[in-house]
Amino acid sequence: MSEFVRNQWYVAAYGREIGRQLFSRTVCGESILFWRTEAGEVAAMSDRCVHRRFPLSQEPSHLVGDTVVCGYHGFTYDRGGACVAVPGQARIPRTARLTSYPVTELDGFVWVFIGDPAHAATTRVPRAPWLDMPGWTAVSGMEPLAARYSLLVDNLLDLSHETYLHGGYIGTPEVAETPIVTRVDEDAGIVYVSRRMADAACPPFYAKSTGITGRITRWQDIEFTPPCLYLLHSRIAPVGVLPNADGTDPGAFHVEVVYALTPETERSTHDFWAVARDFALEDQGVSDFLAENNRTVVLQDVAALNVLEQVIATEPDGYQELSINIDTGGLAARRMIAKLR
Amino acid sequence: MSEFVRNQWYVAAYGREIGRQLFSRTVCGESILFWRTEAGEVAAMSDRCVHRRFPLSQEPSHLVGDTVVCGYHGFTYDRGGACVAVPGQARIPRTARLTSYPVTELDGFVWVFIGDPAHAATTRVPRAPWLDMPGWTAVSGMEPLAARYSLLVDNLLDLSHETYLHGGYIGTPEVAETPIVTRVDEDAGIVYVSRRMADAACPPFYAKSTGITGRITRWQDIEFTPPCLYLLHSRIAPVGVLPNADGTDPGAFHVEVVYALTPETERSTHDFWAVARDFALEDQGVSDFLAENNRTVVLQDVAALNVLEQVIATEPDGYQELSINIDTGGLAARRMIAKLR
Amino acid sequence: MSEFVRNQWYVAAYGREIGRQLFSRTVCGESILFWRTEAGEVAAMSDRCVHRRFPLSQEPSHLVGDTVVCGYHGFTYDRGGACVAVPGQARIPRTARLTSYPVTELDGFVWVFIGDPAHAATTRVPRAPWLDMPGWTAVSGMEPLAARYSLLVDNLLDLSHETYLHGGYIGTPEVAETPIVTRVDEDAGIVYVSRRMADAACPPFYAKSTGITGRITRWQDIEFTPPCLYLLHSRIAPVGVLPNADGTDPGAFHVEVVYALTPETERSTHDFWAVARDFALEDQGVSDFLAENNRTVVLQDVAALNVLEQVIATEPDGYQELSINIDTGGLAARRMIAKLR
Repeated sequence: MSEFVRNQWYVAAYGREIGRQLFSRTVCGESILFWRTEAGEVAAMSDRCVHRRFPLSQEPSHLVGDTVVCGYHGFTYDRGGACVAVPGQARIPRTARLTSYPVTELDGFVWVFIGDPAHAATTRVPRAPWLDMPGWTAVSGMEPLAARYSLLVDNLLDLSHETYLHGGYIGTPEVAETPIVTRVDEDAGIVYVSRRMADAACPPFYAKSTGITGRITRWQDIEFTPPCLYLLHSRIAPVGVLPNADGTDPGAFHVEVVYALTPETERSTHDFWAVARDFALEDQGVSDFLAENNRTVVLQDVAALNVLEQVIATEPDGYQELSINIDTGGLAARRMIAKLR
Repeated sequence: MSEFVRNQWYVAAYGREIGRQLFSRTVCGESILFWRTEAGEVAAMSDRCVHRRFPLSQEPSHLVGDTVVCGYHGFTYDRGGACVAVPGQARIPRTARLTSYPVTELDGFVWVFIGDPAHAATTRVPRAPWLDMPGWTAVSGMEPLAARYSLLVDNLLDLSHETYLHGGYIGTPEVAETPIVTRVDEDAGIVYVSRRMADAACPPFYAKSTGITGRITRWQDIEFTPPCLYLLHSRIAPVGVLPNADGTDPGAFHVEVVYALTPETERSTHDFWAVARDFALEDQGVSDFLAENNRTVVLQDVAALNVLEQVIATEPDGYQELSINIDTGGLAARRMIAKLR
Repeated sequence: MSEFVRNQWYVAAYGREIGRQLFSRTVCGESILFWRTEAGEVAAMSDRCVHRRFPLSQEPSHLVGDTVVCGYHGFTYDRGGACVAVPGQARIPRTARLTSYPVTELDGFVWVFIGDPAHAATTRVPRAPWLDMPGWTAVSGMEPLAARYSLLVDNLLDLSHETYLHGGYIGTPEVAETPIVTRVDEDAGIVYVSRRMADAACPPFYAKSTGITGRITRWQDIEFTPPCLYLLHSRIAPVGVLPNADGTDPGAFHVEVVYALTPETERSTHDFWAVARDFALEDQGVSDFLAENNRTVVLQDVAALNVLEQVIATEPDGYQELSINIDTGGLAARRMIAKLR
């Protein structure tokens, strides 16, 4: 379990996934039970009954008001994880308590704190406000990845792969051709990778959603806050159209591509993705197109990374990769993650 | 293999499963070939040819009279496991002999002795006479369990789970609410767990089979002879109807629920189950109902225990369970099994 | 990986399998990419991009002329494995080079050299000329075997199993009954096993293909050149018909059964098989019959050996086999393979 970065917040789910059905998700190797109280708050606790480890998410376990009843022998827990009833006796052992997890709902995500809860309040939860903000429309999803978290970090920090793996969707030749600028803010714990294409072909993802027919100025500004939140600030405009001196940018289309990278186990990852835009806000056709198209792109990544995980499983110890300039961001992220660990 | 209790008899099969077709079953990690001689006796020997380890239960291996011919190169064995023919030469190597296993047929079960055969004759075979006795009718089956033997021991020794896992079948609230009495007979090697409910709801399993419509006096008297044979002496009667002073008990319905718990591998178990009754002896409808209903209950256990096995596979070393009064019988069984081992 | 015999040639594919589609096959644990240049030559190199180990055989990787373009980030390699282009920069790192493998096409097979390429030129490639020779017609195929290479060596070196495992196809009682003569040529690195039946039943494989209706003289002369090439020189003639003193043999039918045994991983093998004949050269019906029948026989072996691999996976360390005269050839082959290793 030493691979995981602990004492950090991770996205465990979308808020819409958690309701009055018991819901389980494994984060950093810990099986966690989520449910919403009658008042609508998210409760999070270990998904293993203290008695004989039966998963509380497993039928016939069920909610009764704001308590969870284990489906094996009926051990019953309150929203804080304390056991409040056991079969055949009135006395409840003092140690009968589920591990409880700090949770917070922000920007449509349910974040859970993995590590020592004492550090939860003082650890920053990074933000993705566009997912739930006036003037923006967002689509989102999650794909399970049968590959280790670090492969997804590599993937997202080096977008030159768009040209090859996502050609015909979001990639054009200019992405791979254009050099990147990488900057690391050690104090804030953020890796920035920027690639600004002054005159590029417009890929279908942006052409169909914005209506631009010609070549574009395309900016890709990555902001990764390890371990979990990745933002791609994407700016699309006709060639030569730049922001105003005062920072306003009425001639461009803005898309915020958000990923939450949550380790499930040492060898699998929850790949949360969302696409928010500041145009065509009410256009369901654009929403459907972006959701479908981005999901296709994510599944191309999933297929590739699942293959890489299989490759790693069979390769000899001490295998060496070769890195070049495009990997500067990914290598910086690896260093920052190693430091957090 | 150190997990298995050796020098003990185990149920390998029902007698009806063994005939003139070669039959293989793994008991305590040992692959054993069973077949019935022309005279009708059960032979049991290692299911691996001494030559190149081909399973003798695998086609095109076959019986010729009272010999087994290996389907790979034709090595031939008699009912005691001695090799009696090899290809291409008349001389048979002296060491060409399959391990042979002591077997005995009792109460419809085929028991096999695992361990040093010298101890077979002096080791007691526990009995379940109701399965094959005048005045009783029995139904039976076997379900494969992808979970370790000890999880099934836990399950059967603590019937409070009937209320939760088997609600609507054999469980009612009174089972979990009523305390148990546990007694251990070290000399006989038996664990007794008794739960006597004076006034309880009648679950469908007993209501439909006995025809009782109101509340019942329900006795559950467990008698477990580790490692393999578990008996549940179940007494059902209208509330207040008790046995006579002379032990006769004409006002009650008696059901003997029998389980044989046979380890297949370290992580899988053969879950033999049978239900014998002393009423409605000729009623096929009752037989069908009890068979179907008990199988459903067993499959509910199988589903739950298979999940627990998966849980154990991913949990950290040193995980601690919490036990309460209902576990007294299970803990006693664990201690007795550890002593046998 | 220490199980593999290195510094040897192995059959990786039939020539017909390699074209302008990227093709991957694992040989001795090494994933190798094969493709044919525009000039028609076979190129072989590691199937792992040097950058982030993406398999070059995996879509959307593809050929552009005589270069391979990685489908993940576009690293591009020439036919010798040298990297000739990377994304985002003109300078190509000096170490960006795929392992390249010596290959040679002979007798319809694509052979690849596993080990130190410096030894390739001086290491003999054994021949099976009948597969591609005037006066002969051949059928061939390959079946994947989920069993270790050594089990296939055992299988092919001891044909007494034809009587039992392949009865009704190529086996008759005389095969198992007739003793073998084994000879080892240490200098040439060849094991010979000969079984000559003067008066034997004719199995369907030969009866239907040759038209012989009575009993036969049947010679099986094995010539195994470890680690990879196995030849069975099979001579079929009416009883008593022998070759002339000058070596000509017009009264017999000759069949060359060829196997190439190529380890894929420690626990799986590529089982290449071919059947060449010097009669009924233009008869498609005979070709179809021999192909179908031999494939059936190979699949009988595959089923049996896959079972043995599973048996080995669960057996205790130090399990002992028992060998007899029929195993002389197999044991000689084991010794020669151990020496090569």
